[in-house]
Amino acid sequence: MIERIAILGTGLLGTSTGLALRAAGFQGSIAGWNRSPEQAETALHMGAIDTVAADPLEMARSCQILVLATPVLAILDWMEQLAGVMEPDQVITDLGSTKAKISTAADRHFNRKGRAAFLPGHPMAGKERGGASLAEANLYRDAVWLFTENPAWKRTEGASQIIVEWRAWVERMGAKIIDLDAERHDELVAWVSHLPQFLSTALSAVLEDQVGEVPELKDVGGRGLREMTRLGASPFSMWRDIAHTNSDEIAKALLILEQRLAHLRENLHTPELRDEFEKANRFRRT
Amino acid sequence: MIERIAILGTGLLGTSTGLALRAAGFQGSIAGWNRSPEQAETALHMGAIDTVAADPLEMARSCQILVLATPVLAILDWMEQLAGVMEPDQVITDLGSTKAKISTAADRHFNRKGRAAFLPGHPMAGKERGGASLAEANLYRDAVWLFTENPAWKRTEGASQIIVEWRAWVERMGAKIIDLDAERHDELVAWVSHLPQFLSTALSAVLEDQVGEVPELKDVGGRGLREMTRLGASPFSMWRDIAHTNSDEIAKALLILEQRLAHLRENLHTPELRDEFEKANRFRRT
Repeated sequence: MIERIAILGTGLLGTSTGLALRAAGFQGSIAGWNRSPEQAETALHMGAIDTVAADPLEMARSCQILVLATPVLAILDWMEQLAGVMEPDQVITDLGSTKAKISTAADRHFNRKGRAAFLPGHPMAGKERGGASLAEANLYRDAVWLFTENPAWKRTEGASQIIVEWRAWVERMGAKIIDLDAERHDELVAWVSHLPQFLSTALSAVLEDQVGEVPELKDVGGRGLREMTRLGASPFSMWRDIAHTNSDEIAKALLILEQRLAHLRENLHTPELRDEFEKANRFRRT
Repeated sequence: MIERIAILGTGLLGTSTGLALRAAGFQGSIAGWNRSPEQAETALHMGAIDTVAADPLEMARSCQILVLATPVLAILDWMEQLAGVMEPDQVITDLGSTKAKISTAADRHFNRKGRAAFLPGHPMAGKERGGASLAEANLYRDAVWLFTENPAWKRTEGASQIIVEWRAWVERMGAKIIDLDAERHDELVAWVSHLPQFLSTALSAVLEDQVGEVPELKDVGGRGLREMTRLGASPFSMWRDIAHTNSDEIAKALLILEQRLAHLRENLHTPELRDEFEKANRFRRT
């Protein structure tokens, strides 16, 4: 039975995880720590955690499962530090946006004889702005929560039991679990998450150059423009690590989209344009 | 006083115009005609028009203001036909998505001695699907309604008075009027309306190729993906005329966006990426 959870990183996702666990009926303790103490205090006041830990490594030692809820590069740093601190019956799971590098690190530092277990995870939920104060108990409701387990990994029976229970809590938080390979994960999210983000950023940046000086003209675009540029508000701090740890897949997706736009541009007067619209229609229909 | 309005084309916009006029308190008659009679019957049953005209040219002769609410190429065809039918005290206004070609035709066929008046208009409202049955009385609420008048145009005093009144009705329908030059209009909408549409179409088409065969993976993208591909559902029939009548401006905008995406792609590891995110943030802030 999971009774002691620790959340390392009480930003939007970490704090929402605490709130969602409580809303789903979790009765045990939830400790939290954040590099910026104000974020941890906010999570405490919101009821997402019930203690703010003084020392993150001490917190890690005393939990059954540690939720790593920082950006990806920080997750990789923490994994190195935690490898020497946590015991074989303990579990770490993360909420990071890319999985290939994290799964490789999990392979190196965890999931083998004498080491703690590591379960790489990625809830497909978020907002265009971060921070504990925007956290919500229902952030994961109807979202997909991806796990990228490697069947070759070895855990103790105790750690395996905690992982089974954690997956049940994820479902109680309202998420739908999909398991897939770490490389396939990174390829997939490049298409359905990172590409839309970079498109919205590029569109917003181009429009800032073209019509940014005339704010009333932004209204002209209406709902379509608002939706297409909403992700443009996402801060670089959230996306830097994703760009760094999934750059090959993102570059591949961007190049294919550039070619598709050029194809549209060269066919504004030809029947090819109809084919592209009809293919786009099919994506939205199914 | 405007007492007799005719709507030629009772699709989404034409029918919404009738509903919005009624909701704003218009008490006069509203006749309607549509190439497909079922759409006109739907508009009639919804209360957007109070008669279905048997003959569109006869309907045009007997109104004070005719609202041309068809796609752009059909508007251009109707303008030629209506030029020989309508009188100098009558007004035509259109709801077409591009304005340079329509303004040129207005210059040629209308707005001079012995000819009816033409007021080129463009309400920035719509849905990703058309048709009378989706019409709404509040479609234009808080939307921008663009007019592209040429100061050199000449009208009778009667026609000028109808135009003043029509602009007042547009505001009573809840829209905010902006006047601008027809060429500037087409350049502007290429950026804030046509570019977002073509981007969403290209993204949806690429994703149909990449993940279309695995419907459950579409859920992975969540709200961001849904918003970025919503316009991908727009039918070609609505966009063909726009692509044909504003192709130079659309091609220019697409090319600049392609270059911007290539710039992002080449800078996934450099500080340039931060600059692009920050510029995008600025667009959303103001």
